[in-house]
Amino acid sequence: MRVYMGGQFNNIGKLGGAAVTCKHEIEKINEENLGILSTQLSQAIMASDSSKNVPGMDWSKRPGVSEISIRLDDFREQSLLESSNFIVVHGAGSFGHFQASRSGVHKGGLQLPLVKAGFVATRISVTSLNLEIVRALAREGIPSVGMSPFASGWSTCQRNLASADISQVAMAINSGFVPVLHGDAVLDNVQGCTILSGDVIIRHLAEQLKPDYVVFLTDVLGVYDRPPTDPDAVLLREIVAELIFIYNTIIPAVDEDGNWSIVKPVLQNDSKQVEITVAAHDTTGGMATKIAEAALIAKLGIDVYIVKAATDHSLRALKGEIKTGIPDDWLGTISKFSNGKCELHLH
Amino acid sequence: MRVYMGGQFNNIGKLGGAAVTCKHEIEKINEENLGILSTQLSQAIMASDSSKNVPGMDWSKRPGVSEISIRLDDFREQSLLESSNFIVVHGAGSFGHFQASRSGVHKGGLQLPLVKAGFVATRISVTSLNLEIVRALAREGIPSVGMSPFASGWSTCQRNLASADISQVAMAINSGFVPVLHGDAVLDNVQGCTILSGDVIIRHLAEQLKPDYVVFLTDVLGVYDRPPTDPDAVLLREIVAELIFIYNTIIPAVDEDGNWSIVKPVLQNDSKQVEITVAAHDTTGGMATKIAEAALIAKLGIDVYIVKAATDHSLRALKGEIKTGIPDDWLGTISKFSNGKCELHLH
Repeated sequence: MRVYMGGQFNNIGKLGGAAVTCKHEIEKINEENLGILSTQLSQAIMASDSSKNVPGMDWSKRPGVSEISIRLDDFREQSLLESSNFIVVHGAGSFGHFQASRSGVHKGGLQLPLVKAGFVATRISVTSLNLEIVRALAREGIPSVGMSPFASGWSTCQRNLASADISQVAMAINSGFVPVLHGDAVLDNVQGCTILSGDVIIRHLAEQLKPDYVVFLTDVLGVYDRPPTDPDAVLLREIVAELIFIYNTIIPAVDEDGNWSIVKPVLQNDSKQVEITVAAHDTTGGMATKIAEAALIAKLGIDVYIVKAATDHSLRALKGEIKTGIPDDWLGTISKFSNGKCELHLH
Repeated sequence: MRVYMGGQFNNIGKLGGAAVTCKHEIEKINEENLGILSTQLSQAIMASDSSKNVPGMDWSKRPGVSEISIRLDDFREQSLLESSNFIVVHGAGSFGHFQASRSGVHKGGLQLPLVKAGFVATRISVTSLNLEIVRALAREGIPSVGMSPFASGWSTCQRNLASADISQVAMAINSGFVPVLHGDAVLDNVQGCTILSGDVIIRHLAEQLKPDYVVFLTDVLGVYDRPPTDPDAVLLREIVAELIFIYNTIIPAVDEDGNWSIVKPVLQNDSKQVEITVAAHDTTGGMATKIAEAALIAKLGIDVYIVKAATDHSLRALKGEIKTGIPDDWLGTISKFSNGKCELHLH
């Protein structure tokens, strides 16, 4: 179903699980990052006047206080953010992964007690993260509304997205809200259930809503030619990959070493194509998946920025400042559409 | 849309906001009641063997503990509850009301900053209650899944339910889950937004899914002839009211005093009809609304039990023990279908 999107433009921001949670501590939110990110999103969504004092929208009772006090006067003037058709999708990070992996929810089999319990436990974990992210955004004056994919009827068929009615998301946007979706446990009409990742949700939303750009907020500066912990790792600013599409699945070409090709920044003005390959360290599909998803979105003619969350670079990406050209001092990776083909380009 | 419901029977339980939250303290859950209710629901949903030890499904990290420990062995045997097509709908109680009433969400007007912020704040409050109820149920082994009406696309037209696709709810039930819905802030295609009450949700689900019975769990024993705080108040066990239906809205007939008629238990075997009237104390529509909703559901041929939560009476009602006849020692109010007309009967 295609839905008309009012407004001038719309953007999708992906809050990577690693960026908003503490990777190595189960069910712990990275409050500092989430706070900065929420402020940045608020600045990006606010049309112009960033000096304006925006009243918060999380009117929950604070711990240790019995009353809720809101200053109604704050809302008398038209002080709310002019919402600019923004969608937030977040990953699970240290929420949900434990419950999903211990029970094997992604493999299905709801008739098994462990899988059924794991499904319930996974949803509790990811929806509690969703609630906290919605609250953090609302505190910064973003009219955020949680929309759980399972509750919205998103489902899969053999792990591929089968049903995903985005009309609710579109209606929420058209009413001036910022929908906040997340990776979720969903029903699968062949294997019973599975995990629907935030990345797949982003791609579907991008296909349907054709945003101006998509920002992937992560815990590293962007895409590197090798693991970022490697001292020789080089950040790819704009990349080209030879990608083979088979039934919409990207099989990155692998060179004889099985490693990412080294792409030095000095090659930046070189038009030579460089193979982006699946490296040995990337068996979990982490970076390969990111590149694949970025490529699939770029194929739609939508710019993708992969950038470190809660930095000046992420703020500029969210604001769309990168759209007209990459500033010299901007760090991150861009995947662009070029010549009608889906390619990740290195200029 | 009508959806096929597998299984022998299905029931709907309404957790009244007053029963699961502390009425006079903002955003405070009545943990004791919620715990007992969850155990009772678990016993009601479990087909037969109530002595079975059911493993919990809330695998969230406990405060002050860094690890989550689950005993996988608990899930090896088929120890899960045989789910019996149960739906839980809960009210808001002391969650959401403050945010909704201060901003006037029910009256609509999303272009007003206060209403928009109130919509966001209301949803944060009611979804946080939903999450806690889902967790409480999951701890008792109930495969509960939160399904927010707003996220599921429920919407209204001039405050009347306009769109409410229950296919997600039905699919969740058919997959063996217990959907947990709640009163929510929703979009209204005339006035922008409003509040959709748990009672209206119940009625729609009952119309579509035709459950065997519906249990309203509340904070009083049932429907009284006058305010339950009045020492002369008499509990109505089975009641008849002369009700006028105008466009599906019940207008209870009012006697010359404007009070409930006194219905003494000695009248129990009397077939005389008694007028149930809107009393002066009921200007908020509390009990009148309950009776109206019960009557509308009874009209569908579905028994309705109004009973005090977390008592032996609620357990028996949830288990369906009242269906074959009212035991002498059972306290609560029944609204039944009779002679093809919608009536609240007093025998």
